[in-house]
Amino acid sequence: MLENVLFLRGLETCRNGFHEKDPIRADDSFNTFEEILQTAKRQDVDFILLGGDLFHDAKPSQSCYVRAITLMRENIMGDKPIDVAFVSDKDVFQNSVIGDVNYQDPNQNVSYPIFSIHGNHDDPSGFGRTSALDVLSASGQINYFGVCKDLMNIRLKPILLRKGKSKLAIYGISHVRDERLARLMAAGSVNYELPPSNPDSWFKILVLHQNRAVRTGTKHIEDKWIPDFIDLVIWGHEHECLITPQKSLDPQKDFYIIQPGSPVATSLCEAEAVEKKIGVLKVFSKQFHLDEIKLETVRPFVFHTESTKNWNFALKRNQPKEFEDLARKFIKTRLFPLAQKMLTGHPKQPKLPLIRLRLELEEKSHQFNTIRFGQQHFNDTVGNMSDIITFKQAFANRATRKDNVLIDAADLEDLLDTSEMKAEALAPKFFEHEDNEKKKLKVLGMAGMCEAVTCFIEKDDKGALNAMIK
Amino acid sequence: MLENVLFLRGLETCRNGFHEKDPIRADDSFNTFEEILQTAKRQDVDFILLGGDLFHDAKPSQSCYVRAITLMRENIMGDKPIDVAFVSDKDVFQNSVIGDVNYQDPNQNVSYPIFSIHGNHDDPSGFGRTSALDVLSASGQINYFGVCKDLMNIRLKPILLRKGKSKLAIYGISHVRDERLARLMAAGSVNYELPPSNPDSWFKILVLHQNRAVRTGTKHIEDKWIPDFIDLVIWGHEHECLITPQKSLDPQKDFYIIQPGSPVATSLCEAEAVEKKIGVLKVFSKQFHLDEIKLETVRPFVFHTESTKNWNFALKRNQPKEFEDLARKFIKTRLFPLAQKMLTGHPKQPKLPLIRLRLELEEKSHQFNTIRFGQQHFNDTVGNMSDIITFKQAFANRATRKDNVLIDAADLEDLLDTSEMKAEALAPKFFEHEDNEKKKLKVLGMAGMCEAVTCFIEKDDKGALNAMIK
Repeated sequence: MLENVLFLRGLETCRNGFHEKDPIRADDSFNTFEEILQTAKRQDVDFILLGGDLFHDAKPSQSCYVRAITLMRENIMGDKPIDVAFVSDKDVFQNSVIGDVNYQDPNQNVSYPIFSIHGNHDDPSGFGRTSALDVLSASGQINYFGVCKDLMNIRLKPILLRKGKSKLAIYGISHVRDERLARLMAAGSVNYELPPSNPDSWFKILVLHQNRAVRTGTKHIEDKWIPDFIDLVIWGHEHECLITPQKSLDPQKDFYIIQPGSPVATSLCEAEAVEKKIGVLKVFSKQFHLDEIKLETVRPFVFHTESTKNWNFALKRNQPKEFEDLARKFIKTRLFPLAQKMLTGHPKQPKLPLIRLRLELEEKSHQFNTIRFGQQHFNDTVGNMSDIITFKQAFANRATRKDNVLIDAADLEDLLDTSEMKAEALAPKFFEHEDNEKKKLKVLGMAGMCEAVTCFIEKDDKGALNAMIK
Repeated sequence: MLENVLFLRGLETCRNGFHEKDPIRADDSFNTFEEILQTAKRQDVDFILLGGDLFHDAKPSQSCYVRAITLMRENIMGDKPIDVAFVSDKDVFQNSVIGDVNYQDPNQNVSYPIFSIHGNHDDPSGFGRTSALDVLSASGQINYFGVCKDLMNIRLKPILLRKGKSKLAIYGISHVRDERLARLMAAGSVNYELPPSNPDSWFKILVLHQNRAVRTGTKHIEDKWIPDFIDLVIWGHEHECLITPQKSLDPQKDFYIIQPGSPVATSLCEAEAVEKKIGVLKVFSKQFHLDEIKLETVRPFVFHTESTKNWNFALKRNQPKEFEDLARKFIKTRLFPLAQKMLTGHPKQPKLPLIRLRLELEEKSHQFNTIRFGQQHFNDTVGNMSDIITFKQAFANRATRKDNVLIDAADLEDLLDTSEMKAEALAPKFFEHEDNEKKKLKVLGMAGMCEAVTCFIEKDDKGALNAMIK
């Protein structure tokens, strides 16, 4: 009954190059990317579909390019014939540097073609507004689609693929700033071109890389904006792996959502601590089925929030040393065994676990230096020595306190990464303060300024401000 | 009689990406690179040999990668069988990321293989010490060789190629700091592995990318250090095109030198104003012949030094306006016609010429603002509006003057580019000043410090200092 086998790695992020300078975690993203490619091969998929963020950096290091390209060429090239016919007009790639699918190039043998949109990490940036995916597309490794150049009025042409009786239309929306895409979708300014000849007979997938969860200071894409004819949404960007297809919660909608999540934990938050999986999608006519496959090279990661109320001890104030000792024991006896259970036996799975203990303190004076804590007690036994512990304020009168010394650097990083604390949220405090006439923005509005600053910070894109002004 | 046809593009520099942000000159390097690749195809060469600096930047922009890779794939791929057998041990590529020649990869069709060493512009740098050529090697476009990892004792294994009766051994030395290589060569610490079985019967080429000319503040490679068994040296790095094979001036030596020069003028100095050519080398047994081919897409460039003594005018002091007028007329009537003659009719040759008039002033007060000069008089008629004129001091008592206001920015750039004014030359003034005990270097010596600083300035390599200390 099921005929097509599609390998889904919508997978918000392969995030190749993530933590590449970390002596412990440098190889994690590459190991898992390799596992994914090898799984695709073993499952003999028809193609690989990526939902953005193949790279962690908009300008990957040359070392990262070499590793990613080498892994791809080792795994996706070969003599195996491809049974999926590419039947789109070629102008489906009109906004990409290469105008055809790579497996129709007579000068290279591709066995497992990769189709990818870009994410917020590897979107076009820098001189020439070129994405790292353009480089991979030019060199023949991927088919880069879903690039929207006209951001006033988005017109989506689907990638059309046929295999036997199954017909697949894949709409891609490479990452667009959430505020912008939400506005366009709400206004009905995103237009979907239907497949030719009997549009109803095509199975229609939408791949996008946007906020799904509600976050302060930014927008997310609402299910009600997804058109009715879409059968399945591959939702990139979100880190939590929700691979099992879920029906839209909007009662008006019939489509399913697969949220592959990030294969490597890029921020040590709760959502990243679930099992990481990829899926092989099988489509026959308008029916589909997803086989879930657990990734075995992922570094064990235990996230735990603990209220110190439960510890049932009676320390005096200013005894962080004793408190530190309790935390150490808790990690060793309670969290390490959990990490141990996550070992899969895969030869490339890294053994040192990531541990994140979020302590809800009853007493502010129980705080201690978490960096020294990691160095003293967990040197060579965890993968994230310097940020094992974060403190959360749980003590009384929290709302009235003005100091926020309890937010440490690691927490801040998580906040930034999960978009809870973006330039958008901070800027108004600075620029719109009443007393501050001089600081009022004149050339760019707040939104444009924030976009440029975010681009500069996240992507080291020195031309971001210039580009935005133009 | 001549059997092998090798396309020589030792060509110190394709310099892809040179001036890529200049609205006028952005395409120059790509146009000429395309012409070179097309010429290789038209001449049906056996392979293409590059002498370093395929890229202008150690970390090319993604836009530059896309353009260079696209041009290569359009021109070097195809069904044409390759008649040159690669007969080296594979460990000839032991220091490169890919361990075999790209035309033996069963998954791609290469018709015109490129062999390249790196130059001083595209040498390994940044995180992971990876060259842009590693990226191109990983993605299958080039064969990157001559990487010396052990810089205490260089061992060179040749690339061995056979076609019919001709046997070619190519030794490559990718760019090494001149001071270091000169020291190693003088000490006899560069070892050449001879080809197996009848070494005398092989035609031996040495490709290197080093200073050949004597320059203050740095070293150059002397002919006497090149071993006797070398038949031909392809000398990259130097910008002047001296394509016609020259016998070594060292009476003890029998080898010839071909200095292809830079195909695109990267600094507006006299040496770059000669005709740019490439060569097709034909080798039969131990004889060779070079066909010279003029490049037709190169932007016209006129360099002229003029002593204002010749102008025979009697201006008073402080009449720069009148002087400026004379300069303008001189350019229009004397230099523009020369540029006009350089037009080849090639559809991709840019028309706006590069003009550099070096004025030797008799009177310092005749100086004028050269940037405004260009904007006022040569907007839209030359390619280098802002640096058409440089002034040279020719007036009396020059040696005793302390001010050097007459060195303008454009001159300075040339000086830097032609290595006359390097960190090596400037540093002693700063660090070795007697009064300056505090500034004495403690961690790194002068040479190491200079190397790191140069790397930081020229290659935007933020990790250079760290790497050097390690």
